[in-house]
Order: sequence, then C-alpha cells, then structure tokens
Amino acid sequence: MGLPVCASAERGRKMTETFSIQTGQVEDSIDITEQVRSLVERAGVERGLCQVMTLHSTAAIVVNETADPNIGVDVITALSAAVPKRNDWRHDLRDDNAHAHIKASILGPSELIPVSDGELLLGTWQGIWLFEFDGPRTRKVVVHVLAG
Amino acid sequence: MGLPVCASAERGRKMTETFSIQTGQVEDSIDITEQVRSLVERAGVERGLCQVMTLHSTAAIVVNETADPNIGVDVITALSAAVPKRNDWRHDLRDDNAHAHIKASILGPSELIPVSDGELLLGTWQGIWLFEFDGPRTRKVVVHVLAG
Amino acid sequence: MGLPVCASAERGRKMTETFSIQTGQVEDSIDITEQVRSLVERAGVERGLCQVMTLHSTAAIVVNETADPNIGVDVITALSAAVPKRNDWRHDLRDDNAHAHIKASILGPSELIPVSDGELLLGTWQGIWLFEFDGPRTRKVVVHVLAG
Repeated sequence: MGLPVCASAERGRKMTETFSIQTGQVEDSIDITEQVRSLVERAGVERGLCQVMTLHSTAAIVVNETADPNIGVDVITALSAAVPKRNDWRHDLRDDNAHAHIKASILGPSELIPVSDGELLLGTWQGIWLFEFDGPRTRKVVVHVLAG
Repeated sequence: MGLPVCASAERGRKMTETFSIQTGQVEDSIDITEQVRSLVERAGVERGLCQVMTLHSTAAIVVNETADPNIGVDVITALSAAVPKRNDWRHDLRDDNAHAHIKASILGPSELIPVSDGELLLGTWQGIWLFEFDGPRTRKVVVHVLAG
Repeated sequence: MGLPVCASAERGRKMTETFSIQTGQVEDSIDITEQVRSLVERAGVERGLCQVMTLHSTAAIVVNETADPNIGVDVITALSAAVPKRNDWRHDLRDDNAHAHIKASILGPSELIPVSDGELLLGTWQGIWLFEFDGPRTRKVVVHVLAG
C-alpha cells in the first residue's frame, strides 16, 4: 500500500559526471550547452536541479546567450578592461595569474539550472559558457543532477 | 513499520512556477521578494532550497538589500561605469546590446536561497532583485522549490 | 520488499547550520573552507549539494583559491578600483556604504558545492572565501546540506 509512494520517491535517477574541455586561447569562452544537455538527458531526472561547476580557480561557468560567440569575446574584453593583467597584484609574486583568479571570482565557478520535464529549463537565448582566463588548458566540468 | 519513513520522505511538496515582471526603465531594478516569498509559502516545503532564475540573457537576479531602492540604482550606475554602452563590442554588430549581456553575465541569472521552517532563509536586510539592462521589457522569473 | 528502497531514500542525513566569523579589516577576506568541510562531514550526506550563504548584504561568498591569502586581497583591490568608495552613490544618503553593497552584489551571497562520497567536491586549488566590505563585523554563514 505504501510501496507505490516509495517507488515514486525513487523514480528520478541522479548523476554526478565530469567531462573535460580543451581551451584554445589564453583567455577563452566555450559553449558547453550540448555536453551538459546530453548528460541531463542521460540522468533521467524528470524534475530537479542541475549544477554545472568547473573545478579550477582561473575558470568560470556563466549562463548567457551562446548563439553569438562574440558575447563570450565581449565578456572577456570587458573584464580585461576592469581587471588589468599587470597591476602589482600580490598573488603575482607567487603565480603571475592574479587577474585570472579575480575574473573567475567575479563570474563564479558554477551555475544552477532547473530541470523540468527531463530537460534543462533555459530561456530561448540562454546557453552555458565555460570561461578560462589563464589557458590554454584542459578544464574539468562537473555536472551534478539532483531529483526533486 | 517502514511506511512512516516513506511518508516522511514524501511530506514536502515541490513546485516550479513562473511569473512575469514588467520593467519600466531602459536599465531597471525591481524588488521581487514578495512574489517569491508567496510562491514558497504556497509550495508547502518545510526545508529545502529555492532557486530564483530569470530566463533572459540581458537580465539578472541578485540577493542584496531591497529596503532602499537606491541600491538597485547604484548597482546599475557602477556597472555602467565599468561596462560602457559603446565600446566596439563585437555583439553590437548583431544586436546592439552587448553591454547588457556583459552586465547580466557579471551578476548572474539566478540565486539560490535556503528554505527553513517553510520560509525563505534571508538575512534581515536581504531581498531579491530582478535587474534588466535592455528594457523596458516583460521578463519571466522561474521559482523552483525543492524539498530536502 | 520495497522497504530497503525506502530506507535508502532516507539514508542521507541533512543539515542547516549557522556559524559566525569575525572579520578584522574594513574590507576583509577569510578562508572558511575548514568550517564548511567539518559541517559537511557531520551532516553525513553521501551525495548531494551544499549551499554556503552569508546572511548580510555587504558580504559575499566566493569559491576560488584560498591557499594564497593574497588572492583575497587582490580581489578586494580590483573591486575597489572598479567601484570607488565615494561616487555620489544614492544609498550613501542613507547609510554611507553603497560601495560595499555593490561589491557584494557582484560577487554574490552564496555558492553551491556538490557533495560526493560524503565530502565537498572542490578542485585541488579551490577553497571557500567569505568577503566583507563594510567591517570589521561579526558575520553569519549558513551551511545547508541536501541529499540527492
């Protein structure tokens, strides 16, 4: 009698998966929407949340328009004007990439996207960007899908 | 014997709802705390997470003080100084609103707020802002409440 | 027969806990990774999400490298250059700390981190920062761990 309730509590599958992306420029933006979308479909969660997170501190995840790749270029240009590469940054005494950590902190390492009817709930013009500000590098992206 | 456990697993209700907001200025900030709060109460989730997300890429969601509407104005002023409207942005060749995409990318399209004792867990001076940088427009906001 | 399924649905414990941090400078960055990590271990959740949120609107939570404390200093320096303390901010007519609200809005009040094998899923060089831009103050941080 109680069992169908339990079964429904367990109906959604879940998933934590990691994929890698190779960036090409020193500062680069790459549309990863399709990679995330296919992992969410595979997770089989009807309703829930999908977190997309990069595990690196000179990289960032952003949800914005990806249909025009120039938006990624413009974001990099704007951040480079606001955060100069050379500025007596204190972290440059150790690693010479302070500007990249600052830009990544401003954009943030992850985004959360609702899952509805088994699919990412994104607006018509929203996609998922990976930014890297100290490349080219191979970067790991974690996709964590949770039912609920 | 196991059934009460199952029932408790199912106790929390869940919800994904969308509402619309009309912005008034070209760049605008609107306090949407009450709309979100009433949806969370209706969801009937005792404990969990509430995601608030705009589905547009020239808009953003921010949690900060909304008691003084001037904070929204000041955030718009600060971003306009850091990201000029005209700057040979590459996306302007297509759509003439690159600055709005950049500002929205910096603030981000969503915020996550814990739900505790059936209510949004916000500090005394925290509220929820919708920003739009390329309006006036009617903008959709998704509220996704998840028990757990 | 269905009971083991129910039991597994309930296996993960959950937690919402708050701790306080005293900041030392007017603008300060403090590594709170260990406090969050020990709360997550105590929560006993094998797989899920951990939200870390400050309840104040002149403070922010950031995931970036904490191994070099200078990264926190550099982020404060960069934001101070982009958002001047004095700028005819309209909120300063009321409270004289508009710059702090703007910086906190840019970084955001919370971060979400996956939990995997009972531990925070962070990259080798990722840690958790609390920033305060209008201190010194005692600031509350909420850690909400959700299984799934």
